[in-house]
Amino acid sequence: MAASTDPLAMLTEVNGLAAFNRWAGIEVTAADEGTAQIQMPWREEFGQFTGFLHAGLVSALVDTACGFAAATLAGTSLLASHCAVNYLSPAVGEVFLSRALVVKAGKRQLFVSADLLAQWQGQWKVIASGETILIRADD
Amino acid sequence: MAASTDPLAMLTEVNGLAAFNRWAGIEVTAADEGTAQIQMPWREEFGQFTGFLHAGLVSALVDTACGFAAATLAGTSLLASHCAVNYLSPAVGEVFLSRALVVKAGKRQLFVSADLLAQWQGQWKVIASGETILIRADD
Amino acid sequence: MAASTDPLAMLTEVNGLAAFNRWAGIEVTAADEGTAQIQMPWREEFGQFTGFLHAGLVSALVDTACGFAAATLAGTSLLASHCAVNYLSPAVGEVFLSRALVVKAGKRQLFVSADLLAQWQGQWKVIASGETILIRADD
Amino acid sequence: MAASTDPLAMLTEVNGLAAFNRWAGIEVTAADEGTAQIQMPWREEFGQFTGFLHAGLVSALVDTACGFAAATLAGTSLLASHCAVNYLSPAVGEVFLSRALVVKAGKRQLFVSADLLAQWQGQWKVIASGETILIRADD
Repeated sequence: MAASTDPLAMLTEVNGLAAFNRWAGIEVTAADEGTAQIQMPWREEFGQFTGFLHAGLVSALVDTACGFAAATLAGTSLLASHCAVNYLSPAVGEVFLSRALVVKAGKRQLFVSADLLAQWQGQWKVIASGETILIRADD
Repeated sequence: MAASTDPLAMLTEVNGLAAFNRWAGIEVTAADEGTAQIQMPWREEFGQFTGFLHAGLVSALVDTACGFAAATLAGTSLLASHCAVNYLSPAVGEVFLSRALVVKAGKRQLFVSADLLAQWQGQWKVIASGETILIRADD
Repeated sequence: MAASTDPLAMLTEVNGLAAFNRWAGIEVTAADEGTAQIQMPWREEFGQFTGFLHAGLVSALVDTACGFAAATLAGTSLLASHCAVNYLSPAVGEVFLSRALVVKAGKRQLFVSADLLAQWQGQWKVIASGETILIRADD
Repeated sequence: MAASTDPLAMLTEVNGLAAFNRWAGIEVTAADEGTAQIQMPWREEFGQFTGFLHAGLVSALVDTACGFAAATLAGTSLLASHCAVNYLSPAVGEVFLSRALVVKAGKRQLFVSADLLAQWQGQWKVIASGETILIRADD
């Protein structure tokens, strides 16, 4: 799928094709050239053993937002190469939101940065940050 | 929960407390002082948009195996601080297996390394590697 | 050394104690609560095999700026735990400048982010980004 | 420079072209298809403010060993994309040695892992681990 002229429509379509994203209830809430934002409401099945959001879902949100931001510039012929996440605060919330920004779109690869916020009792708080590297795989 | 004399029994109990791990069908298949191994059979709901295992689940498996290996030495009063994953090969398989090893158990933090293997048509292949840093949070 | 009331004076003193920083000609050019900025003019000895700035010096600048930013909040009883650097563009320049910002100063650890800019023919360009995790080691 | 039939001779030549490596006294002590080993004796100028080996030099050694291991398989038309280092133990030693291994040599990128050992009073100890991602840049 090539980069579309309407990033939000393109990402919404890609998001709908991902079975895991549908299961998790991830929605694309904003997108523009080089940026994307996704949201996911909390559910009980997302918990790790103390009931916080599982680190895998923290990573999934960061990785998904980063991949979506990259796709607004480079389409979906991209391979994720690396993802790193810093867990800044306990992952507790009613809604989780990840915002990603392409830091550098090079000839061969894209560097993307994201944060993850949790909404708890009406307040948003940054609970994680992360980054991904994606490789262009058009050929 | 303190580190138990039977690492596998301790991790099996912790794993059972994590709602996400139950949903994903993650099982602890081996554990010893400083090591842990988990498995997860493929399900359709785990796919990203091209049908491979979602990067969030790759990270979830790496992170879970690393946390479990750390817990065999330090109990469960641990906070994940950082997780990084390298996606080495396409994440396609019928079963996924992650093996983690504590590289260094320090006074304040533990460094843990893991790989992730996929079984496909009877062959096992390493598809990702990763590492986590966990902080002791006993006090 | 405890966090001082004058971050720039404190960091300048710490910087002067580091033999490598003196050799490399690193200077602290700005500092405030949670931020630090350092500069280093290019010298021939800094080159890798094609003559660009050696990746080790890219990392050294990112790591130093991050450590200094952390020290403005937490003093110098800190242990670096992790440093990751993304090489965004070729490291060519007459002067290099790294700006670091503490993303989260927790009870046990600090997360710090930095970029690295190169000045070339009067233009500044971001050539790398990075992050470090530092552990408080007061006890 | 293409990958040579004698990895050690090729790396020794590349190493000699890097001004920073000459300044630091880095030597290539072993190499084979997909592996490389370098050494560097301690000097006073390598110190950070408490006199340990500066984190920038820790990163420089890890990054250099990884790049050299990659070059044994892919030649020197490689761009470093990412380097991450974990500081496992205080970097004190009379000699430092880094061993790198290519984990995966893909069509577009190589993943390389390394450790860093310090020799102190006749004993070798692992003091850091790290990894790099390098992109093939032949075209």
